[in-house]
Amino acid sequence: MDTIKHIPENGKTRIVIIGGGFAGLKLARQLANTKYQVVLIDRNNFHQFQPLFYQVATSGLEPSSIAFPLRKIFQKKRNVHFRMADLLEVNTKENEIYTSLGKLRYDYLVLATGVNTNYFGNKNIEEFSIPMKSVSEAIFLRNSILRNYEKALNESDPEKAANYMNIVLVGGGPTGVELAGALAEMKSEILPKDYPELDFSLMNVYLFEASDKLLNGMSEKASAKAQRFLEKLGVIVRTSARVADYDGLSIRLDDGEEFKSYTMVWAAGVAARPIKGITENAGVRGGRLQVDQFNRIEGLDNVFAIGDLAFQQEGKFDNGHPQVAQVGLQQAGNLAKNFKKILLNKELKAFHYQDRGSMATIGKNLAVADLPGVKMQGFLAWVLWLFVHLMAIVGVKNRFFILINWVWNYFTSDQSLRVLIRPKKRSFTDKASLKMKEENMMI
Amino acid sequence: MDTIKHIPENGKTRIVIIGGGFAGLKLARQLANTKYQVVLIDRNNFHQFQPLFYQVATSGLEPSSIAFPLRKIFQKKRNVHFRMADLLEVNTKENEIYTSLGKLRYDYLVLATGVNTNYFGNKNIEEFSIPMKSVSEAIFLRNSILRNYEKALNESDPEKAANYMNIVLVGGGPTGVELAGALAEMKSEILPKDYPELDFSLMNVYLFEASDKLLNGMSEKASAKAQRFLEKLGVIVRTSARVADYDGLSIRLDDGEEFKSYTMVWAAGVAARPIKGITENAGVRGGRLQVDQFNRIEGLDNVFAIGDLAFQQEGKFDNGHPQVAQVGLQQAGNLAKNFKKILLNKELKAFHYQDRGSMATIGKNLAVADLPGVKMQGFLAWVLWLFVHLMAIVGVKNRFFILINWVWNYFTSDQSLRVLIRPKKRSFTDKASLKMKEENMMI
Repeated sequence: MDTIKHIPENGKTRIVIIGGGFAGLKLARQLANTKYQVVLIDRNNFHQFQPLFYQVATSGLEPSSIAFPLRKIFQKKRNVHFRMADLLEVNTKENEIYTSLGKLRYDYLVLATGVNTNYFGNKNIEEFSIPMKSVSEAIFLRNSILRNYEKALNESDPEKAANYMNIVLVGGGPTGVELAGALAEMKSEILPKDYPELDFSLMNVYLFEASDKLLNGMSEKASAKAQRFLEKLGVIVRTSARVADYDGLSIRLDDGEEFKSYTMVWAAGVAARPIKGITENAGVRGGRLQVDQFNRIEGLDNVFAIGDLAFQQEGKFDNGHPQVAQVGLQQAGNLAKNFKKILLNKELKAFHYQDRGSMATIGKNLAVADLPGVKMQGFLAWVLWLFVHLMAIVGVKNRFFILINWVWNYFTSDQSLRVLIRPKKRSFTDKASLKMKEENMMI
Repeated sequence: MDTIKHIPENGKTRIVIIGGGFAGLKLARQLANTKYQVVLIDRNNFHQFQPLFYQVATSGLEPSSIAFPLRKIFQKKRNVHFRMADLLEVNTKENEIYTSLGKLRYDYLVLATGVNTNYFGNKNIEEFSIPMKSVSEAIFLRNSILRNYEKALNESDPEKAANYMNIVLVGGGPTGVELAGALAEMKSEILPKDYPELDFSLMNVYLFEASDKLLNGMSEKASAKAQRFLEKLGVIVRTSARVADYDGLSIRLDDGEEFKSYTMVWAAGVAARPIKGITENAGVRGGRLQVDQFNRIEGLDNVFAIGDLAFQQEGKFDNGHPQVAQVGLQQAGNLAKNFKKILLNKELKAFHYQDRGSMATIGKNLAVADLPGVKMQGFLAWVLWLFVHLMAIVGVKNRFFILINWVWNYFTSDQSLRVLIRPKKRSFTDKASLKMKEENMMI
């Protein structure tokens, strides 16, 4: 395998970061303008702002508002090199990574590849449900929803029409809760205007949660209020409800109860993608990698893991930190400082997570927020949620566009993004094109 | 085949319009609030603003800015019914259409399905080149361009890198010219910032035109200036150059000359999609349908064709009108008036095209414009072009977003839309899902 091209061997210590999500991107940005050479690798050429996927899925935001080209972020940073590639394997003996673009030597390696959807081994659910861990999955969900309404329109049997209109969300964490709220509002405010011939009293939005409360990581009050807000919006919330199976139309719960919907969104679990050469030794529950207090992988000197991928026992977190953005961002910040300390031969600082609170939004003007010392639910929490997320968005122009979009949607209760843009298909038939097909990861 | 559901038989005279492009959409809007029942059918659930596809392709605009959900446009119009469906066949004896959603009776039928890319029978070119007649094709082109730059980066051989960087545009009409200008500017202003390791002096943007001048429908002065503007931007323009073949890498011209590029955009010809039950009898050159001075299809009383699809000899247009938006828009306006006259038993008005001029933009601040009595080239023509297209956009919010985008891009010479969002793939394995796959037009 050849070496990845055009990354200079110039005597600088090379830190290779795999993953341009919250943690990896922050680390790379904080190491730009240092004496290190930073190589950032991601399978996409953009960073995705996960908290707002549900808005793409419900046609509230265009995908580009929450997808930030990584090259643009590092345009002026001469010591940061970006490559769009897949990581295939890590060779810790030789300090090399192997990727779809070639191999690369590292002095330090930081794994920040995050987590993917976990179907808990159920192949049917994996095949038929819709995950929501990426922009393209959010687009897929949006398109499915729009297409199903067109189909509902062509059913004369109200029960069959309902099968197309119903939406089932599995997983009562922030993803499921936020999606449920947005869909319930679509049902009451927007869809009847777009589809005057459909009877939306037939349509149900369901939210199934296996544990006994929604938003497990938040306070009792937040959980209770979230459920109440959703029920007021018309969502049918079922806690202690575990989905056993799904065949594309029928959903069966553990207790035998059945529901019908052509759309089931699976946001009920996460698991890290295995990293060949690392996970075999350092992997623990959920595919996370065991790290020490400096986020260094157990048994390795120069390989680190941060973000959702990392499993670190620290302070009261015996079972690892919650897999939320704040943790990854803080670990990235701490690791960046430590890398700078290494250059100055200073002692490294152990990581300590500062819980700055959590929030979840329900619909267009309600949210629940647990902050240190303060718990809020309702409209004020929602304003706070808006503000925090807007400030976290990369790029002034994107912030501006999102703000305008939100203000517009808030006052007009309308979304102009209900467009079903199908990907263009290509067909390849001969050997020159088969080769192109392999290279062409898109189709 | 069942009848399409939920379209009331209420005694109103039913006008069925196939196609929600410029002509079909205008006609439907002008017939809203009349005594007619209007049924608008399109294979997509949105109207696409074609003049700005090239901006999506060069990451200058997000797709949603130029895709307008048709349901939203007709939300408050109770007499207009929209269906997302494909037209399969027309039965003029029974006054029925057959679609992917079912059949439908019509009192009047208006065909406004436009034209598609014409490969002149060359299967290789059809397989390997990239067309640009829809938003999803523009997205595909954008993704291809971005992916090829990532690949160029991994080539140590400069000639192979150039094969990935080069872009060939075939067709010297407005599409090819505008794309060439935008790509040339990307090459000089933006790409070197994103890919500092690449040598862009190796990259060429080619524009091949089979006739002896660009912008054939415009004045000599416009054609000459367009070529000069492009050449100043670094585009290699070749007129009297006909592309004979393309295998995905090598382009061969008629005269034997060869060029290499993994990206060839084909904007060199259009042809109407055949409409079963109509084209067999009324089809003429290019698949267009012969119509009389009222846009009625020859031989049929109650079936009309407007826009690019229609072939009408009128005034000096012995060979039909140019296939441009203005013609379709004016035909739609005239036909709408005629439909209203029918209700009042008034005499119909024949169509007469008023040429209000043409424009094409080259890069970020130059254009050529032929207006009645005035020919302009340069910056002022560009301002005019901006204004005209902005006003033609549907929806205040979209106009606002596009304006902000343009202003931003103008002053910062930067585009934050260089994101390669791949469609999510689904795999289907058993019979329930195979059925879903057939219904699921997306994958």
